[in-house]
Amino acid sequence: MPLGERQGDKSESRYCGVETDFNDDMPHVLAFNLSSGGFDFVIAPLMDPAYRPSLVQKGSAGSGVLPFAGSDLVMSPSQWSSHVVGKISSWIDLDSEDETIRMDSETTLKQEIAWASHLSLQACLLPAPKGTSCGNYARCVNQILQGLSNMQLWLRIPLVKPDDDSADGKNDTLVDSWETWNSFRLLCEHHSLLSVALDILGTLPSANSLGRWFGESVRAAIINTEAFLTNARGYPCLSKRHQRLVTGFFNHSIQIIISGKSVHPQANVAADASQNHSDEGLQRHALRPYLDYVGYLYQKMDPLPEQERFELGYRDFLQSPLQPLMDNLEAQTYETFEKDAMKYIQYQRAVSKALLDRVPDEEAFTKTTVLMVVGAGRGPLVRASLQAAEETGRKLKVFAVEKNPNAVVTLHALVKLEGWEDSVTIVSSDMRHWNAPEKADILVSELLGSFGDNELSPECLDGAQRFLKEDGISIPSSYTSFLQPVTASKLHNDIKAHKDLVHFETAYVVKIHNVARLAPTQPVFTFTHPKLSDKESNQRYKKLQFVIPNDTGSAMVHGFAGYFDATLYKDVHLGIEPSTATPNMFSWFAIFFPLRTPICLSPGSNLDVHFWRCCGPTKVWYEWSVTSPTSSPIHNTNGRSYWVGL
Amino acid sequence: MPLGERQGDKSESRYCGVETDFNDDMPHVLAFNLSSGGFDFVIAPLMDPAYRPSLVQKGSAGSGVLPFAGSDLVMSPSQWSSHVVGKISSWIDLDSEDETIRMDSETTLKQEIAWASHLSLQACLLPAPKGTSCGNYARCVNQILQGLSNMQLWLRIPLVKPDDDSADGKNDTLVDSWETWNSFRLLCEHHSLLSVALDILGTLPSANSLGRWFGESVRAAIINTEAFLTNARGYPCLSKRHQRLVTGFFNHSIQIIISGKSVHPQANVAADASQNHSDEGLQRHALRPYLDYVGYLYQKMDPLPEQERFELGYRDFLQSPLQPLMDNLEAQTYETFEKDAMKYIQYQRAVSKALLDRVPDEEAFTKTTVLMVVGAGRGPLVRASLQAAEETGRKLKVFAVEKNPNAVVTLHALVKLEGWEDSVTIVSSDMRHWNAPEKADILVSELLGSFGDNELSPECLDGAQRFLKEDGISIPSSYTSFLQPVTASKLHNDIKAHKDLVHFETAYVVKIHNVARLAPTQPVFTFTHPKLSDKESNQRYKKLQFVIPNDTGSAMVHGFAGYFDATLYKDVHLGIEPSTATPNMFSWFAIFFPLRTPICLSPGSNLDVHFWRCCGPTKVWYEWSVTSPTSSPIHNTNGRSYWVGL
Repeated sequence: MPLGERQGDKSESRYCGVETDFNDDMPHVLAFNLSSGGFDFVIAPLMDPAYRPSLVQKGSAGSGVLPFAGSDLVMSPSQWSSHVVGKISSWIDLDSEDETIRMDSETTLKQEIAWASHLSLQACLLPAPKGTSCGNYARCVNQILQGLSNMQLWLRIPLVKPDDDSADGKNDTLVDSWETWNSFRLLCEHHSLLSVALDILGTLPSANSLGRWFGESVRAAIINTEAFLTNARGYPCLSKRHQRLVTGFFNHSIQIIISGKSVHPQANVAADASQNHSDEGLQRHALRPYLDYVGYLYQKMDPLPEQERFELGYRDFLQSPLQPLMDNLEAQTYETFEKDAMKYIQYQRAVSKALLDRVPDEEAFTKTTVLMVVGAGRGPLVRASLQAAEETGRKLKVFAVEKNPNAVVTLHALVKLEGWEDSVTIVSSDMRHWNAPEKADILVSELLGSFGDNELSPECLDGAQRFLKEDGISIPSSYTSFLQPVTASKLHNDIKAHKDLVHFETAYVVKIHNVARLAPTQPVFTFTHPKLSDKESNQRYKKLQFVIPNDTGSAMVHGFAGYFDATLYKDVHLGIEPSTATPNMFSWFAIFFPLRTPICLSPGSNLDVHFWRCCGPTKVWYEWSVTSPTSSPIHNTNGRSYWVGL
Repeated sequence: MPLGERQGDKSESRYCGVETDFNDDMPHVLAFNLSSGGFDFVIAPLMDPAYRPSLVQKGSAGSGVLPFAGSDLVMSPSQWSSHVVGKISSWIDLDSEDETIRMDSETTLKQEIAWASHLSLQACLLPAPKGTSCGNYARCVNQILQGLSNMQLWLRIPLVKPDDDSADGKNDTLVDSWETWNSFRLLCEHHSLLSVALDILGTLPSANSLGRWFGESVRAAIINTEAFLTNARGYPCLSKRHQRLVTGFFNHSIQIIISGKSVHPQANVAADASQNHSDEGLQRHALRPYLDYVGYLYQKMDPLPEQERFELGYRDFLQSPLQPLMDNLEAQTYETFEKDAMKYIQYQRAVSKALLDRVPDEEAFTKTTVLMVVGAGRGPLVRASLQAAEETGRKLKVFAVEKNPNAVVTLHALVKLEGWEDSVTIVSSDMRHWNAPEKADILVSELLGSFGDNELSPECLDGAQRFLKEDGISIPSSYTSFLQPVTASKLHNDIKAHKDLVHFETAYVVKIHNVARLAPTQPVFTFTHPKLSDKESNQRYKKLQFVIPNDTGSAMVHGFAGYFDATLYKDVHLGIEPSTATPNMFSWFAIFFPLRTPICLSPGSNLDVHFWRCCGPTKVWYEWSVTSPTSSPIHNTNGRSYWVGL
C-alpha cells in the first residue's frame, strides 16, 4: 500500500519495498510482506544461495532443474511483475582471483537474469561489486543488457565515501563508491536499463558528495534497520541528515526499501499492545515500524505547489529552443507566456521607474513619453506599460511593433476592447526593418531566451536602436547568461538515444530536475542596450574555470545548465539564475548544453570551459568545449548542428 | 633537389625546405632558395607582417588590397603549389587577453588561409600557440579546417619538455609542448588535415618523450641553425642524439626545414674558396652548408632491406584479419605465405627434434612415426616434415588434411611431382570432422593469426586432438598473445573516416610504422596443446596493467598493438613479439585493437586494460576495455562488430 498521496505526484517513490531471505514458497513471501507487512513489493532471492554450478555433478541427476524459488506458475504474471524485484545471488563475484568462482558466478548470473526475464520482473537487484575492480562483472552485465528490452538492472552500491580528512594519500583501501558505480556504468556505456540501488548506512558522506547521486539513475534506496536511531518511545527514527536525504529520494522518484532484521523489538511490542494485535495468530511484521516511519516522512512533506504540479511532466524533458525570428509563435505559446504575471509586474515596475526618471512631476501633464514595445506579441507589455503610465501619472504614446501578423490581429482586437486607440499605434513589421515616424524615449522588449541572448535579442535590438533617442532607455538595459556544470545522466541518455552527432551539439530548453549541480554558476556573456558603438560586435568568447568543491569527490559532467539574469531598469531585474531567480515566474526553463563525451573530474580538480557566441550573415550559434582536465572536441563547429536563424 | 635517392623509398622526407622572411618578390625568393640554394621548397610569409586589420582605416584608401606577397600571377600555379608552404603571420595570438589583438588575429588568419587556398598551396605553417591555453586559436582553426579539402595546416610546436628533475611541482611555467599539441588536436577532433611541424632546438628531451611524436601526424621538422654544432673544420653538424632523431624523421616521411641565420660563416667561406665560387656574382646561399649536412645524413642511412621495400605500401595500412575457417584462401595468399622460408625452417627444426625425441636411433629403421599435417594448404609443412624425416633418418607416414578443395588439387599435383605417393596420404576434410583411420604421433599445424589464437587455432586443434595419441606431440605445443599500448593517430584517423562504431570495434592486421610504443609488451592469452582436459574452456580473461615510463610525459593511447609468440617444440619458437621476433619472417604483421575514444595518460600514470576471448556456438570474438585512468565502454560487446566464424 503506497506510503501516501501527494497531490499530483504519481512518482514511484510512493511505493516501499522490503528485502527478504530466500524462500521456496513465494506466495507466502508475498502474502506475509505485502498483505500483513504493508509493503508494496519484495526484493526476493530467486535462487537457492547454496547453488554452485561447478558442484552440480554432470549427468548425475539428469533432471537439470535449477534451484529457483517455485515455478512461474505459483503466482500470476502480474503478481510476479508488480510485486517482486529479483535479488541476484549475493555470493557471486565475477572479479574473483579464483577462476572457478568467476565461472560459477557468470553462469549463475546469466541463469538468474534469464529466469527473471522469463517471469517479466520489472527489475533485478545486482549485488554490489566485491572489490574496487569490477571489469569482468561489468563485461558480463553489459553482455546481458544487450539482450534485455524492459527489465531494469539495479546495481547495489553502498553509500560510502572516505572523509577528506582521512584521504591523506594513505587510505587506499577505502573507496568512494560513486567511483565504482561510475566505472561500471562507463564500461556499460550509460546503458539506460542499468540503474543504482543505494545502500544507506548509519553514517552519511558530505552533502556535496550525496548531491552527486541526484544526477544519476538511482531507482531505489535500501535502508538497513541498523541505520535507524531510536526515539524516546523506543520507535525507529532517522537522523535529521538521513531525513533530508530520504525526502530528497521522494522528490527524485527513488523508492525506499527496508532491509535487515528488526533492531527495535520494543516498537513492535508496543504496537501489538496498543492495537491488541493477536487476530488469527498472524504474526505482526517485524519491520512494520520502519515502514510506518518512512510513511510518516512521506506524509509530512510539503505539498507540491500548483506550478510545480503543472510542470511535473516537463521535468528533465528536452525541448528544442524556440526560433522566434524564423517561426511565428502559436496562440498557445502566447497564452502560456502571458499567464506569467510576475514577469509583467517586473516590467511594469521598470517602466514606472523609467517614466519617473525621465519626466519630472512638474512636466507630468505636458510631456508625452514615446514608448515602443518591440515584439509586442498579443500585447502584455503594452498593457504593463500603460499601467505604469497610469500608476505614475505620466502621459504615454505607445507604438506596438510586432512581426507576427497573427498576433497583430489579436493586438488590434485588444486595443479596441480596452479603448486604447488614442494612445497605442500598432505596427505590423519586423523591428529590424521598420521606418519609425519618430524616435522613442523608451524601448521595451522581451526577446530573452533561457540563455539570455539565445533568441537573438542583441541582433533585434541592434535593428531597433535606430529609432531610440540618443539618451533613450532600453528595457531591459542589459542581460547576462550564466552556466554551471551538471551531472545529468537522464539527459545524456535521452540525447544518446538519437544516435547522432547533431543532438549532442544542440542546446535544449529543459526543466532540469534529476541533476547534480557541481559548482556555483558563473556569468558568461553580457549585452547592454543601447549599444555605445555601432561597431561593437555581438560575437563573444568566454573562458570559465569551475572549481568543484573538494568534499564532492569525483564527479561526472554531462553538460552545462544555462540561465540568464536581465536588468530591466536600475534595480528591477528578472531572471532564472538559481541564486537570484525571480520567484513565481515560469516563462523560462533552464537551457542545457550537452557534452558529447561526459568528462570525469577527479576530486578538487578544475574544469576549464570555453563558450563562443558566433555570428554569421544568416545565423547565430554557440560553440563550446572543455580544455581541462582534458580537452573535448569543439562542439557545434560553424553551427553545423544547432543555430538560430536571423 | 632531393637530398638523395634511397632505393624504393619515395617518401616526402627526401625534400628539404627553408624558412624565409617576408618578401614581396616571390619569384626571386624561389629563384634564390631553390635554384641557387638547392632547397626543394620554401616556407614563406604570405602577408606583410606589419599589417593589422584594426589599423586599416575604413574606407580610406578604398582599394581594399590586402598586403599579400605578389599576386597569384607572379608564379605559375604549379610553382606555388609545389614549392611554397605558406607561413601564417607569426604575430597572431588568438588567445591574447587583448580583444583587439584577438580580433585582428582571427581576421588575419582567415584572410591568409583563404589566400593560400586560392593559390592551391599544399600546406600552411601555423605559428606556435603563444601560451599554454589555446582554446580560441583551436576554435578558429577548427572552423577553418571544416572548409578545407586538401591544404594541410601544420601547427608549429617547439620540441620542448621540462626535465623530470625540475618537475618538482614548482615548475609550472615550463610546459610539455606535446600537451599543447594534444589539447589543440583534441579540440579539432583529430582532423586529418591538421599536422605538426616540430621546431628542433639545441637540447632534446628524453628518448621516451621524443618517441611519442612518431605516433603523431608530424609533417616537418624545422631545425634552427642554432641547433647545429660546429665540427673541426668549421662546418655545421649535429649531435649524435640529433642525428638519430633526424634519421628517425627520414624514416617516418618527415621533411626537414632549415630555419634561422647562418651561424657558421666559415663554412661558406671555405666552400667558396674551394669551389672558386664567384661565377656571375651569384651569392652563395648562406644556409647551403646546413642543407649539405642534412643531405649527408640522408645519404649515409642504410639502404632499406628488400623485404622492407616490398612492404612499404603496407605501412600503417589497415586490413581485416583473415577468416580462414569461413573463407577459403586464394592461391595468391598461399603463394605469399609459402615464400616465408624462415617459418618452414623453424617447423623443420621442430619436427626434427620431435622425431629424435620420439624415435631413438636404434628404432630409426623399424619404427614409423605417424605425422598429420592439419591445415596442409598447398603442402609446405608436408615438405618441411618430410625434410625433417630425411634429415634425422626417421621413417615417416604423413596424412595431409586440408579443408579447402582448391588447395587439395595443388597438393595432389605436388605429391605426384615429388614422388611422395608412398609416404603421404591426402585427406580432403575439415580436421574438426575427419574420422582418422589411425592415431597420430605428431600433429603439425600452422593456424596462427597475428594475435596467436585469433584465427581459431584452439578450436581447430580441439577437433584434431581426437586423433592424437595420448602421449602425442602437437607442433606448436603452445602459443601466447602479447599486447602493448600505442599512439597511432594515423590508424585512428583511418578508422574514424568510416564514421561508424563497427570499425572502432574491429581488430586489424597492419604493418604498424608511424606509432609510438608506450610500454613493453605483456602476455595475454596462452593456449597449450594437447589440452590436458576436455573441459578446459577456450574462453579467456586477462587484466593487464601497463606502466608508462615517467620520462615519457603525458601520452595518448589510440589502441593496442598485438603480437604472438609460439613454441613449436621445446626451444624452437616462432613469433612476431618485437623483443623476441623471429628474424626475416614476413607472414604476419601486427594486429591492432583500436579504442573508440583515445585515452590520455598523465605522466607516470597506469593503464589498466581488460581483454576477453569469448566463445559462442557459431563464433569467437574479443571484447576489450580500459578501466584506468578512466573507464572506456566495453568494446565489441557480444561480438556485435567483429568476430571470427567457427
